[in-house]
Amino acid sequence: MKVVKNISEVKNIVNEWKQQGCTIGFVPTMGYLHEGHGSLVVKAMENSKVVVSIFVNPMQFGPTEDLDKYPRDLEKDSKYCKELGVDLIFNPEPGEMYPEGYCTSVDISGLSEELCGLSRPVHFKGVCTVVNKLLNIVNPDKAYFGEKDAQQLAIIRRMVKDLSMNVEIVGCPIIREKDGLAKSSRNTYLSSEERRAALALSKSIFAGKDMVKEGCREVDILLKKMKDIINEEPLARIDYLKAVDAMTMQQVDTIDRPVLIAMAVYIGKVRLIDNFSFIPG
Amino acid sequence: MKVVKNISEVKNIVNEWKQQGCTIGFVPTMGYLHEGHGSLVVKAMENSKVVVSIFVNPMQFGPTEDLDKYPRDLEKDSKYCKELGVDLIFNPEPGEMYPEGYCTSVDISGLSEELCGLSRPVHFKGVCTVVNKLLNIVNPDKAYFGEKDAQQLAIIRRMVKDLSMNVEIVGCPIIREKDGLAKSSRNTYLSSEERRAALALSKSIFAGKDMVKEGCREVDILLKKMKDIINEEPLARIDYLKAVDAMTMQQVDTIDRPVLIAMAVYIGKVRLIDNFSFIPG
Repeated sequence: MKVVKNISEVKNIVNEWKQQGCTIGFVPTMGYLHEGHGSLVVKAMENSKVVVSIFVNPMQFGPTEDLDKYPRDLEKDSKYCKELGVDLIFNPEPGEMYPEGYCTSVDISGLSEELCGLSRPVHFKGVCTVVNKLLNIVNPDKAYFGEKDAQQLAIIRRMVKDLSMNVEIVGCPIIREKDGLAKSSRNTYLSSEERRAALALSKSIFAGKDMVKEGCREVDILLKKMKDIINEEPLARIDYLKAVDAMTMQQVDTIDRPVLIAMAVYIGKVRLIDNFSFIPG
Repeated sequence: MKVVKNISEVKNIVNEWKQQGCTIGFVPTMGYLHEGHGSLVVKAMENSKVVVSIFVNPMQFGPTEDLDKYPRDLEKDSKYCKELGVDLIFNPEPGEMYPEGYCTSVDISGLSEELCGLSRPVHFKGVCTVVNKLLNIVNPDKAYFGEKDAQQLAIIRRMVKDLSMNVEIVGCPIIREKDGLAKSSRNTYLSSEERRAALALSKSIFAGKDMVKEGCREVDILLKKMKDIINEEPLARIDYLKAVDAMTMQQVDTIDRPVLIAMAVYIGKVRLIDNFSFIPG
Protein backbone atom coordinates (compact mmCIF):
# COMPACT_ATOMS: atom_id res chain seq x y z
CA MET A 1 0.00 0.00 0.00
CA LYS A 2 1.30 3.42 -1.01
CA VAL A 3 0.73 6.69 0.87
CA VAL A 4 0.89 9.60 -1.61
CA LYS A 5 0.75 13.34 -0.86
CA ASN A 6 0.94 14.57 -4.43
CA ILE A 7 -1.93 15.03 -6.92
CA SER A 8 0.07 14.23 -10.04
CA GLU A 9 1.48 11.04 -8.49
CA VAL A 10 -2.04 9.79 -7.71
CA LYS A 11 -3.10 10.56 -11.28
CA ASN A 12 -0.13 8.64 -12.67
CA ILE A 13 -0.78 5.57 -10.51
CA VAL A 14 -4.50 5.54 -11.33
CA ASN A 15 -3.80 5.99 -15.06
CA GLU A 16 -1.48 3.01 -14.99
CA TRP A 17 -4.11 0.91 -13.20
CA LYS A 18 -6.75 1.95 -15.75
CA GLN A 19 -4.46 0.99 -18.62
CA GLN A 20 -4.19 -2.45 -17.04
CA GLY A 21 -8.01 -2.65 -17.12
CA CYS A 22 -8.50 -2.17 -13.36
CA THR A 23 -11.68 -0.67 -11.90
CA ILE A 24 -11.18 1.87 -9.11
CA GLY A 25 -13.21 2.21 -5.90
CA PHE A 26 -12.76 5.41 -3.90
CA VAL A 27 -13.52 6.21 -0.26
CA PRO A 28 -13.02 9.91 0.58
CA THR A 29 -12.52 10.51 4.31
CA MET A 30 -11.23 13.05 6.81
CA GLY A 31 -9.28 10.29 8.53
CA TYR A 32 -9.41 9.10 12.13
CA LEU A 33 -10.97 6.04 10.64
CA HIS A 34 -13.50 3.85 12.41
CA GLU A 35 -15.59 0.84 11.43
CA GLY A 36 -18.00 3.14 9.59
CA HIS A 37 -15.21 4.01 7.15
CA GLY A 38 -14.11 0.37 7.26
CA SER A 39 -17.52 -0.74 5.96
CA LEU A 40 -17.11 1.63 3.00
CA VAL A 41 -13.68 0.22 2.23
CA VAL A 42 -14.97 -3.35 2.43
CA LYS A 43 -17.79 -2.45 0.02
CA ALA A 44 -15.27 -0.74 -2.29
CA MET A 45 -13.38 -4.03 -2.57
CA GLU A 46 -15.86 -4.93 -5.33
CA ASN A 47 -13.39 -2.97 -7.53
CA SER A 48 -9.90 -4.18 -8.52
CA LYS A 49 -8.21 -1.27 -6.69
CA VAL A 50 -9.28 0.77 -3.66
CA VAL A 51 -8.13 4.34 -2.99
CA VAL A 52 -8.81 6.06 0.36
CA SER A 53 -8.26 9.81 0.71
CA ILE A 54 -7.49 11.26 4.12
CA PHE A 55 -7.86 15.02 4.06
CA VAL A 56 -9.29 17.29 6.76
CA ASN A 57 -10.73 19.83 4.32
CA PRO A 58 -10.41 23.38 5.69
CA MET A 59 -12.99 24.66 3.18
CA GLN A 60 -15.86 22.77 4.81
CA PHE A 61 -15.25 24.11 8.32
CA GLY A 62 -16.76 27.41 9.46
CA PRO A 63 -14.54 29.94 11.27
CA THR A 64 -15.84 28.87 14.71
CA GLU A 65 -15.82 25.13 14.00
CA ASP A 66 -13.49 22.32 15.05
CA LEU A 67 -10.94 22.35 12.18
CA ASP A 68 -7.88 22.64 14.41
CA LYS A 69 -8.92 20.10 16.99
CA TYR A 70 -10.44 17.64 14.50
CA PRO A 71 -8.75 14.34 15.45
CA ARG A 72 -5.92 13.07 13.23
CA ASP A 73 -3.84 9.87 13.39
CA LEU A 74 -2.29 8.99 10.03
CA GLU A 75 -0.20 6.16 11.45
CA LYS A 76 -3.20 4.35 12.92
CA ASP A 77 -5.27 5.08 9.80
CA SER A 78 -2.54 3.67 7.52
CA LYS A 79 -2.32 0.50 9.58
CA TYR A 80 -6.10 0.06 9.45
CA CYS A 81 -6.21 0.66 5.67
CA LYS A 82 -3.38 -1.79 5.10
CA GLU A 83 -5.17 -4.46 7.12
CA LEU A 84 -8.32 -3.90 5.09
CA GLY A 85 -6.38 -4.27 1.80
CA VAL A 86 -6.45 -0.66 0.58
CA ASP A 87 -4.11 -0.09 -2.41
CA LEU A 88 -3.46 3.65 -2.10
CA ILE A 89 -3.93 6.38 0.50
CA PHE A 90 -4.06 9.94 -0.82
CA ASN A 91 -3.08 12.25 2.03
CA PRO A 92 -2.46 15.75 0.65
CA GLU A 93 -1.48 18.87 2.57
CA PRO A 94 -3.98 21.76 2.35
CA GLY A 95 -1.46 23.64 0.17
CA GLU A 96 -1.47 20.81 -2.37
CA MET A 97 -5.26 20.93 -2.68
CA TYR A 98 -5.62 24.73 -2.43
CA PRO A 99 -2.38 26.35 -3.63
CA GLU A 100 -1.89 30.12 -3.73
CA GLY A 101 -4.30 31.73 -6.18
CA TYR A 102 -6.87 28.96 -5.83
CA CYS A 103 -10.33 30.48 -6.40
CA THR A 104 -12.81 27.88 -7.70
CA SER A 105 -15.84 26.55 -5.88
CA VAL A 106 -18.69 24.16 -6.60
CA ASP A 107 -22.02 24.81 -4.93
CA ILE A 108 -25.55 23.49 -4.79
CA SER A 109 -28.54 25.73 -4.22
CA GLY A 110 -31.68 24.41 -2.58
CA LEU A 111 -30.45 21.17 -1.01
CA SER A 112 -27.67 22.77 0.98
CA GLU A 113 -29.52 25.49 2.91
CA GLU A 114 -31.65 23.05 4.94
CA LEU A 115 -30.74 20.84 7.93
CA CYS A 116 -26.97 20.98 8.56
CA GLY A 117 -26.70 23.88 6.06
CA LEU A 118 -28.63 26.12 8.48
CA SER A 119 -26.09 25.91 11.29
CA ARG A 120 -23.10 25.27 8.98
CA PRO A 121 -23.61 27.77 6.12
CA VAL A 122 -20.30 27.26 4.25
CA HIS A 123 -20.10 23.53 4.93
CA PHE A 124 -21.63 22.00 1.80
CA LYS A 125 -19.91 24.39 -0.60
CA GLY A 126 -16.65 23.11 0.90
CA VAL A 127 -17.81 19.51 0.65
CA CYS A 128 -18.92 19.82 -2.99
CA THR A 129 -15.70 21.56 -3.99
CA VAL A 130 -13.37 19.06 -2.35
CA VAL A 131 -15.32 16.00 -3.47
CA ASN A 132 -15.47 17.34 -7.03
CA LYS A 133 -11.69 17.84 -6.99
CA LEU A 134 -10.98 14.47 -5.34
CA LEU A 135 -13.16 12.70 -7.93
CA ASN A 136 -11.17 14.41 -10.71
CA ILE A 137 -7.88 13.36 -9.12
CA VAL A 138 -8.75 9.74 -8.33
CA ASN A 139 -11.08 9.32 -11.34
CA PRO A 140 -12.82 6.28 -9.79
CA ASP A 141 -15.53 4.07 -11.26
CA LYS A 142 -17.40 4.16 -7.96
CA ALA A 143 -17.16 6.35 -4.86
CA TYR A 144 -18.52 5.30 -1.46
CA PHE A 145 -20.20 7.54 1.11
CA GLY A 146 -21.87 6.76 4.44
CA GLU A 147 -25.59 7.28 4.89
CA LYS A 148 -24.83 8.80 8.29
CA ASP A 149 -24.08 12.05 6.44
CA ALA A 150 -27.39 11.75 4.60
CA GLN A 151 -27.59 15.33 3.42
CA GLN A 152 -23.99 15.19 2.20
CA LEU A 153 -24.80 12.02 0.27
CA ALA A 154 -27.90 13.61 -1.34
CA ILE A 155 -25.91 16.71 -2.28
CA ILE A 156 -23.05 14.72 -3.80
CA ARG A 157 -25.48 12.58 -5.79
CA ARG A 158 -27.05 15.81 -7.05
CA MET A 159 -23.68 17.38 -7.97
CA VAL A 160 -22.51 14.25 -9.82
CA LYS A 161 -25.80 14.05 -11.76
CA ASP A 162 -26.00 17.79 -12.49
CA LEU A 163 -22.41 18.03 -13.73
CA SER A 164 -22.63 14.69 -15.61
CA MET A 165 -19.58 13.41 -13.73
CA ASN A 166 -18.30 9.98 -14.72
CA VAL A 167 -18.65 8.13 -11.43
CA GLU A 168 -21.25 6.05 -9.64
CA ILE A 169 -22.02 7.20 -6.08
CA VAL A 170 -22.69 4.34 -3.66
CA GLY A 171 -24.39 5.01 -0.31
CA CYS A 172 -23.61 2.62 2.56
CA PRO A 173 -25.64 2.02 5.77
CA ILE A 174 -24.84 3.66 9.11
CA ILE A 175 -22.56 1.58 11.32
CA ARG A 176 -23.36 1.74 15.05
CA GLU A 177 -21.66 0.90 18.32
CA LYS A 178 -23.17 -2.08 20.15
CA ASP A 179 -25.30 0.25 22.26
CA GLY A 180 -26.65 2.08 19.20
CA LEU A 181 -24.53 5.25 18.90
CA ALA A 182 -23.71 5.97 15.26
CA LYS A 183 -19.94 5.68 14.69
CA SER A 184 -18.25 9.04 14.14
CA SER A 185 -14.76 10.45 14.48
CA ARG A 186 -16.32 13.18 16.61
CA ASN A 187 -17.41 10.61 19.24
CA THR A 188 -13.85 10.84 20.58
CA TYR A 189 -14.69 14.36 21.81
CA LEU A 190 -17.23 12.94 24.28
CA SER A 191 -16.52 12.58 28.02
CA SER A 192 -17.79 9.34 29.53
CA GLU A 193 -20.85 11.11 30.88
CA GLU A 194 -21.52 12.65 27.46
CA ARG A 195 -20.92 9.30 25.80
CA ARG A 196 -23.80 7.88 27.83
CA ALA A 197 -25.99 10.93 27.11
CA ALA A 198 -25.28 10.61 23.37
CA LEU A 199 -27.45 7.49 23.30
CA ALA A 200 -30.42 9.87 23.24
CA LEU A 201 -29.88 10.23 19.47
CA SER A 202 -30.04 6.55 18.55
CA LYS A 203 -32.84 5.88 21.07
CA SER A 204 -34.87 8.57 19.34
CA ILE A 205 -33.97 7.19 15.89
CA PHE A 206 -34.98 3.63 16.83
CA ALA A 207 -38.27 4.83 18.36
CA GLY A 208 -39.04 6.89 15.24
CA LYS A 209 -38.23 3.96 12.97
CA ASP A 210 -40.62 1.75 14.92
CA MET A 211 -43.43 4.31 14.76
CA VAL A 212 -43.08 4.67 11.00
CA LYS A 213 -42.89 0.89 10.57
CA GLU A 214 -46.11 0.59 12.57
CA GLY A 215 -47.85 2.98 10.18
CA CYS A 216 -47.35 6.50 11.56
CA ARG A 217 -47.38 8.93 8.62
CA GLU A 218 -47.97 12.17 10.54
CA VAL A 219 -44.68 14.04 10.81
CA ASP A 220 -45.91 16.20 13.76
CA ILE A 221 -46.69 13.17 15.88
CA LEU A 222 -43.49 11.37 14.86
CA LEU A 223 -41.15 14.27 15.56
CA LYS A 224 -42.85 15.14 18.88
CA LYS A 225 -42.18 11.64 20.17
CA MET A 226 -38.60 11.69 18.88
CA LYS A 227 -37.93 15.13 20.39
CA ASP A 228 -39.38 14.07 23.74
CA ILE A 229 -36.88 11.24 23.93
CA ILE A 230 -33.94 13.57 23.31
CA ASN A 231 -35.24 16.25 25.65
CA GLU A 232 -35.37 13.72 28.50
CA GLU A 233 -31.56 13.84 28.41
CA PRO A 234 -30.35 16.99 30.26
CA LEU A 235 -27.00 17.12 28.40
CA ALA A 236 -28.70 17.06 24.97
CA ARG A 237 -29.76 20.15 23.01
CA ILE A 238 -31.45 19.70 19.63
CA ASP A 239 -29.94 21.70 16.74
CA TYR A 240 -32.57 20.33 14.35
CA LEU A 241 -34.81 17.28 14.01
CA LYS A 242 -36.77 17.26 10.79
CA ALA A 243 -38.47 15.11 8.20
CA VAL A 244 -37.57 16.10 4.64
CA ASP A 245 -38.10 14.87 1.10
CA ALA A 246 -35.14 12.55 0.49
CA MET A 247 -34.38 14.14 -2.89
CA THR A 248 -35.02 17.85 -2.38
CA MET A 249 -34.35 18.17 1.40
CA GLN A 250 -37.53 20.25 1.70
CA GLN A 251 -39.67 19.65 4.80
CA VAL A 252 -42.71 17.38 4.53
CA ASP A 253 -45.83 17.14 6.73
CA THR A 254 -46.80 13.62 5.76
CA ILE A 255 -44.71 10.58 4.96
CA ASP A 256 -46.14 10.03 1.48
CA ARG A 257 -42.86 9.75 -0.46
CA PRO A 258 -39.23 8.74 0.31
CA VAL A 259 -38.29 10.80 3.35
CA LEU A 260 -35.21 11.39 5.44
CA ILE A 261 -35.70 11.92 9.18
CA ALA A 262 -32.51 13.61 10.30
CA MET A 263 -31.19 15.23 13.45
CA ALA A 264 -28.23 17.17 14.75
CA VAL A 265 -27.95 17.26 18.53
CA TYR A 266 -25.41 18.93 20.77
CA ILE A 267 -24.19 16.75 23.62
CA GLY A 268 -22.42 19.38 25.67
CA LYS A 269 -20.30 21.15 23.03
CA VAL A 270 -20.13 18.18 20.66
CA ARG A 271 -22.49 18.25 17.68
CA LEU A 272 -23.59 14.77 16.59
CA ILE A 273 -25.84 13.70 13.71
CA ASP A 274 -28.02 10.66 13.07
CA ASN A 275 -30.87 9.77 10.73
CA PHE A 276 -33.01 7.15 9.10
CA SER A 277 -34.75 7.00 5.74
CA PHE A 278 -38.14 5.55 4.91
CA ILE A 279 -39.74 4.73 1.58
CA PRO A 280 -43.53 4.15 1.86
CA GLY A 281 -44.42 0.76 0.32
CA MET B 1 -20.48 12.85 -38.78
CA LYS B 2 -23.12 12.30 -36.10
CA VAL B 3 -25.32 14.99 -34.53
CA VAL B 4 -26.34 13.89 -31.02
CA LYS B 5 -28.74 15.62 -28.60
CA ASN B 6 -28.36 13.22 -25.72
CA ILE B 7 -25.72 13.22 -22.96
CA SER B 8 -25.59 9.44 -22.48
CA GLU B 9 -25.24 8.84 -26.21
CA VAL B 10 -22.22 11.17 -26.38
CA LYS B 11 -20.67 9.38 -23.40
CA ASN B 12 -21.18 5.99 -25.08
CA ILE B 13 -19.63 7.10 -28.36
CA VAL B 14 -16.64 8.71 -26.64
CA ASN B 15 -16.12 5.65 -24.42
CA GLU B 16 -16.02 3.44 -27.48
CA TRP B 17 -13.49 5.74 -29.15
CA LYS B 18 -11.33 5.73 -26.01
CA GLN B 19 -11.39 1.95 -25.87
CA GLN B 20 -10.09 1.97 -29.45
CA GLY B 21 -7.20 4.13 -28.24
CA CYS B 22 -8.43 7.38 -29.84
CA THR B 23 -7.55 10.80 -28.46
CA ILE B 24 -10.40 13.31 -28.32
CA GLY B 25 -10.25 17.02 -29.19
CA PHE B 26 -13.18 19.16 -28.10
CA VAL B 27 -14.38 22.57 -29.32
CA PRO B 28 -17.26 23.97 -27.22
CA THR B 29 -19.27 26.63 -29.07
CA MET B 30 -22.60 28.45 -29.04
CA GLY B 31 -22.96 27.75 -32.76
CA TYR B 32 -23.40 30.16 -35.67
CA LEU B 33 -19.91 29.10 -36.55
CA HIS B 34 -17.39 31.31 -38.32
CA GLU B 35 -13.74 30.94 -39.26
CA GLY B 36 -12.74 31.69 -35.68
CA HIS B 37 -14.43 28.45 -34.61
CA GLY B 38 -13.07 26.84 -37.77
CA SER B 39 -9.50 27.59 -36.67
CA LEU B 40 -10.18 25.84 -33.35
CA VAL B 41 -11.54 22.77 -35.15
CA VAL B 42 -8.53 22.67 -37.48
CA LYS B 43 -6.20 22.83 -34.47
CA ALA B 44 -8.25 20.09 -32.74
CA MET B 45 -7.54 17.78 -35.69
CA GLU B 46 -4.25 16.95 -33.94
CA ASN B 47 -6.45 14.41 -32.06
CA SER B 48 -7.89 11.24 -33.62
CA LYS B 49 -11.48 12.42 -33.07
CA VAL B 50 -12.99 15.91 -32.91
CA VAL B 51 -16.19 16.77 -31.02
CA VAL B 52 -17.91 20.17 -31.40
CA SER B 53 -20.67 21.18 -29.02
CA ILE B 54 -23.28 23.68 -30.15
CA PHE B 55 -25.25 24.95 -27.18
CA VAL B 56 -26.51 28.47 -26.52
CA ASN B 57 -26.16 28.26 -22.75
CA PRO B 58 -29.00 30.13 -20.99
CA MET B 59 -27.04 30.18 -17.71
CA GLN B 60 -24.39 32.57 -19.06
CA PHE B 61 -26.86 35.21 -20.28
CA GLY B 62 -28.14 37.91 -17.94
CA PRO B 63 -31.89 38.67 -17.86
CA THR B 64 -31.53 41.70 -20.16
CA GLU B 65 -29.05 40.08 -22.56
CA ASP B 66 -29.42 38.62 -26.05
CA LEU B 67 -30.27 34.96 -25.27
CA ASP B 68 -33.42 34.87 -27.39
CA LYS B 69 -32.03 36.68 -30.38
CA TYR B 70 -28.60 35.02 -30.28
CA PRO B 71 -28.18 33.76 -33.87
CA ARG B 72 -28.69 30.04 -34.54
CA ASP B 73 -28.31 27.97 -37.72
CA LEU B 74 -27.74 24.29 -37.00
CA GLU B 75 -28.03 23.26 -40.62
CA LYS B 76 -25.30 25.63 -41.79
CA ASP B 77 -23.15 24.76 -38.74
CA SER B 78 -23.49 21.01 -39.45
CA LYS B 79 -22.47 21.50 -43.06
CA TYR B 80 -19.43 23.55 -42.01
CA CYS B 81 -18.39 20.98 -39.38
CA LYS B 82 -18.77 18.13 -41.86
CA GLU B 83 -16.57 19.94 -44.38
CA LEU B 84 -13.93 20.48 -41.72
CA GLY B 85 -13.97 16.77 -40.79
CA VAL B 86 -15.65 16.95 -37.37
CA ASP B 87 -16.63 13.50 -36.06
CA LEU B 88 -19.45 14.41 -33.68
CA ILE B 89 -21.66 17.42 -32.95
CA PHE B 90 -23.24 17.55 -29.50
CA ASN B 91 -26.33 19.76 -29.74
CA PRO B 92 -28.38 19.37 -26.55
CA GLU B 93 -31.65 21.12 -25.67
CA PRO B 94 -31.48 23.30 -22.52
CA GLY B 95 -33.68 20.71 -20.75
CA GLU B 96 -31.08 18.00 -21.41
CA MET B 97 -28.32 20.10 -19.83
CA TYR B 98 -30.44 21.60 -17.01
CA PRO B 99 -33.32 19.22 -16.25
CA GLU B 100 -35.90 19.96 -13.56
CA GLY B 101 -34.30 20.05 -10.12
CA TYR B 102 -30.89 21.06 -11.51
CA CYS B 103 -29.12 23.15 -8.86
CA THR B 104 -25.31 22.91 -9.18
CA SER B 105 -22.95 25.70 -10.15
CA VAL B 106 -19.21 26.19 -10.54
CA ASP B 107 -17.78 29.60 -9.86
CA ILE B 108 -14.49 31.46 -9.69
CA SER B 109 -13.88 34.33 -7.32
CA GLY B 110 -11.40 37.05 -8.18
CA LEU B 111 -10.89 36.55 -11.90
CA SER B 112 -14.56 36.82 -12.81
CA GLU B 113 -15.50 40.16 -11.24
CA GLU B 114 -13.19 42.24 -13.47
CA LEU B 115 -13.59 43.28 -17.14
CA CYS B 116 -16.62 41.51 -18.69
CA GLY B 117 -17.68 40.34 -15.21
CA LEU B 118 -18.45 43.96 -14.26
CA SER B 119 -21.15 44.44 -16.90
CA ARG B 120 -22.13 40.75 -17.07
CA PRO B 121 -22.25 39.67 -13.40
CA VAL B 122 -23.68 36.13 -13.86
CA HIS B 123 -21.82 35.43 -17.10
CA PHE B 124 -18.73 33.57 -15.93
CA LYS B 125 -20.55 31.44 -13.37
CA GLY B 126 -22.67 30.23 -16.29
CA VAL B 127 -19.58 29.70 -18.44
CA CYS B 128 -17.70 27.74 -15.75
CA THR B 129 -20.71 25.57 -15.01
CA VAL B 130 -21.47 24.66 -18.60
CA VAL B 131 -17.83 24.11 -19.57
CA ASN B 132 -17.31 21.93 -16.49
CA LYS B 133 -20.34 19.84 -17.44
CA LEU B 134 -19.39 19.66 -21.14
CA LEU B 135 -15.87 18.53 -20.23
CA ASN B 136 -17.35 15.76 -18.07
CA ILE B 137 -19.66 14.68 -20.90
CA VAL B 138 -17.13 14.73 -23.73
CA ASN B 139 -14.15 13.77 -21.55
CA PRO B 140 -11.62 15.07 -24.07
CA ASP B 141 -7.83 14.96 -23.96
CA LYS B 142 -7.68 18.58 -25.11
CA ALA B 143 -10.24 21.38 -25.34
CA TYR B 144 -9.80 24.43 -27.59
CA PHE B 145 -10.84 28.00 -26.81
CA GLY B 146 -10.32 31.25 -28.69
CA GLU B 147 -8.11 33.98 -27.29
CA LYS B 148 -10.77 36.49 -28.36
CA ASP B 149 -12.60 35.61 -25.14
CA ALA B 150 -9.41 36.13 -23.18
CA GLN B 151 -11.00 36.43 -19.76
CA GLN B 152 -13.07 33.31 -20.41
CA LEU B 153 -9.92 31.44 -21.40
CA ALA B 154 -8.08 32.57 -18.23
CA ILE B 155 -11.04 31.57 -16.07
CA ILE B 156 -11.39 28.15 -17.67
CA ARG B 157 -7.66 27.48 -17.30
CA ARG B 158 -8.04 28.42 -13.62
CA MET B 159 -11.08 26.18 -13.09
CA VAL B 160 -9.40 23.20 -14.76
CA LYS B 161 -6.25 23.67 -12.67
CA ASP B 162 -8.09 24.33 -9.39
CA LEU B 163 -10.39 21.32 -9.74
CA SER B 164 -7.58 19.08 -11.09
CA MET B 165 -9.66 18.28 -14.17
CA ASN B 166 -8.16 15.76 -16.60
CA VAL B 167 -7.97 17.89 -19.74
CA GLU B 168 -5.46 20.18 -21.42
CA ILE B 169 -6.81 23.63 -22.32
CA VAL B 170 -5.45 25.01 -25.60
CA GLY B 171 -5.81 28.72 -26.43
CA CYS B 172 -5.93 29.71 -30.12
CA PRO B 173 -5.25 33.13 -31.70
CA ILE B 174 -7.96 35.62 -32.66
CA ILE B 175 -9.13 35.28 -36.26
CA ARG B 176 -9.95 38.58 -38.00
CA GLU B 177 -11.83 39.74 -41.07
CA LYS B 178 -9.59 41.15 -43.82
CA ASP B 179 -10.20 44.68 -42.55
CA GLY B 180 -9.24 43.74 -38.98
CA LEU B 181 -12.58 43.17 -37.17
CA ALA B 182 -12.31 40.16 -34.84
CA LYS B 183 -14.65 37.39 -36.03
CA SER B 184 -17.70 36.96 -33.80
CA SER B 185 -21.18 35.51 -34.14
CA ARG B 186 -22.44 38.83 -32.77
CA ASN B 187 -21.03 40.70 -35.82
CA THR B 188 -24.21 39.63 -37.65
CA TYR B 189 -26.15 42.06 -35.42
CA LEU B 190 -24.32 45.03 -37.01
CA SER B 191 -25.92 47.26 -39.65
CA SER B 192 -23.59 48.22 -42.51
CA GLU B 193 -22.92 51.57 -40.88
CA GLU B 194 -22.17 49.88 -37.57
CA ARG B 195 -20.02 47.30 -39.32
CA ARG B 196 -17.78 50.13 -40.55
CA ALA B 197 -17.80 51.81 -37.11
CA ALA B 198 -16.80 48.49 -35.46
CA LEU B 199 -13.35 48.84 -37.00
CA ALA B 200 -12.62 51.27 -34.17
CA LEU B 201 -11.90 48.26 -31.95
CA SER B 202 -9.27 46.61 -34.11
CA LYS B 203 -7.74 49.98 -35.08
CA SER B 204 -7.27 50.68 -31.39
CA ILE B 205 -5.88 47.18 -30.76
CA PHE B 206 -3.35 47.45 -33.61
CA ALA B 207 -2.24 50.90 -32.46
CA GLY B 208 -1.84 49.65 -28.88
CA LYS B 209 0.14 46.63 -30.04
CA ASP B 210 2.51 48.87 -32.00
CA MET B 211 3.06 51.19 -29.03
CA VAL B 212 3.92 48.30 -26.75
CA LYS B 213 6.19 46.77 -29.37
CA GLU B 214 7.98 50.09 -29.63
CA GLY B 215 8.63 50.07 -25.91
CA CYS B 216 5.69 51.83 -24.25
CA ARG B 217 5.29 50.36 -20.73
CA GLU B 218 3.12 53.10 -19.21
CA VAL B 219 -0.48 51.85 -19.09
CA ASP B 220 -1.92 55.39 -18.73
CA ILE B 221 -0.29 56.56 -21.93
CA LEU B 222 -1.15 53.37 -23.80
CA LEU B 223 -4.83 53.33 -22.83
CA LYS B 224 -5.27 57.05 -23.49
CA LYS B 225 -4.11 56.59 -27.07
CA MET B 226 -6.28 53.49 -27.53
CA LYS B 227 -9.36 55.21 -26.05
CA ASP B 228 -8.86 58.27 -28.24
CA ILE B 229 -9.03 56.09 -31.34
CA ILE B 230 -12.32 54.53 -30.24
CA ASN B 231 -13.82 57.84 -29.13
CA GLU B 232 -13.20 59.29 -32.59
CA GLU B 233 -15.99 56.97 -33.76
CA PRO B 234 -19.40 58.52 -32.87
CA LEU B 235 -21.24 55.15 -32.85
CA ALA B 236 -18.77 53.60 -30.38
CA ARG B 237 -19.17 53.68 -26.60
CA ILE B 238 -16.49 52.07 -24.42
CA ASP B 239 -17.77 49.60 -21.79
CA TYR B 240 -14.22 49.00 -20.56
CA LEU B 241 -10.67 49.23 -21.87
CA LYS B 242 -8.10 48.00 -19.36
CA ALA B 243 -4.68 46.48 -18.92
CA VAL B 244 -4.68 43.58 -16.45
CA ASP B 245 -2.32 40.91 -15.17
CA ALA B 246 -2.85 38.00 -17.58
CA MET B 247 -3.16 35.48 -14.71
CA THR B 248 -5.13 37.34 -12.04
CA MET B 249 -7.12 39.84 -14.18
CA GLN B 250 -6.15 42.58 -11.72
CA GLN B 251 -5.35 46.01 -13.20
CA VAL B 252 -1.71 46.98 -13.69
CA ASP B 253 -0.07 50.42 -14.05
CA THR B 254 3.06 49.24 -15.79
CA ILE B 255 3.66 46.51 -18.33
CA ASP B 256 6.23 44.64 -16.28
CA ARG B 257 4.73 41.13 -16.49
CA PRO B 258 2.45 39.22 -18.91
CA VAL B 259 -0.55 41.51 -19.43
CA LEU B 260 -3.83 41.37 -21.25
CA ILE B 261 -5.11 44.60 -22.81
CA ALA B 262 -8.82 44.01 -23.27
CA MET B 263 -11.84 46.02 -24.32
CA ALA B 264 -15.58 45.76 -24.64
CA VAL B 265 -17.17 48.44 -26.82
CA TYR B 266 -20.78 49.06 -27.71
CA ILE B 267 -21.35 49.82 -31.38
CA GLY B 268 -24.94 51.02 -31.20
CA LYS B 269 -26.59 48.30 -29.11
CA VAL B 270 -24.09 45.58 -30.04
CA ARG B 271 -21.41 44.80 -27.47
CA LEU B 272 -18.15 43.63 -29.06
CA ILE B 273 -14.88 42.54 -27.46
CA ASP B 274 -11.27 42.49 -28.60
CA ASN B 275 -7.86 42.21 -26.94
CA PHE B 276 -4.17 41.53 -27.23
CA SER B 277 -1.64 40.06 -24.84
CA PHE B 278 1.96 41.03 -24.29
CA ILE B 279 4.77 39.32 -22.46
CA PRO B 280 7.74 41.63 -21.77
CA GLY B 281 10.91 40.00 -23.12
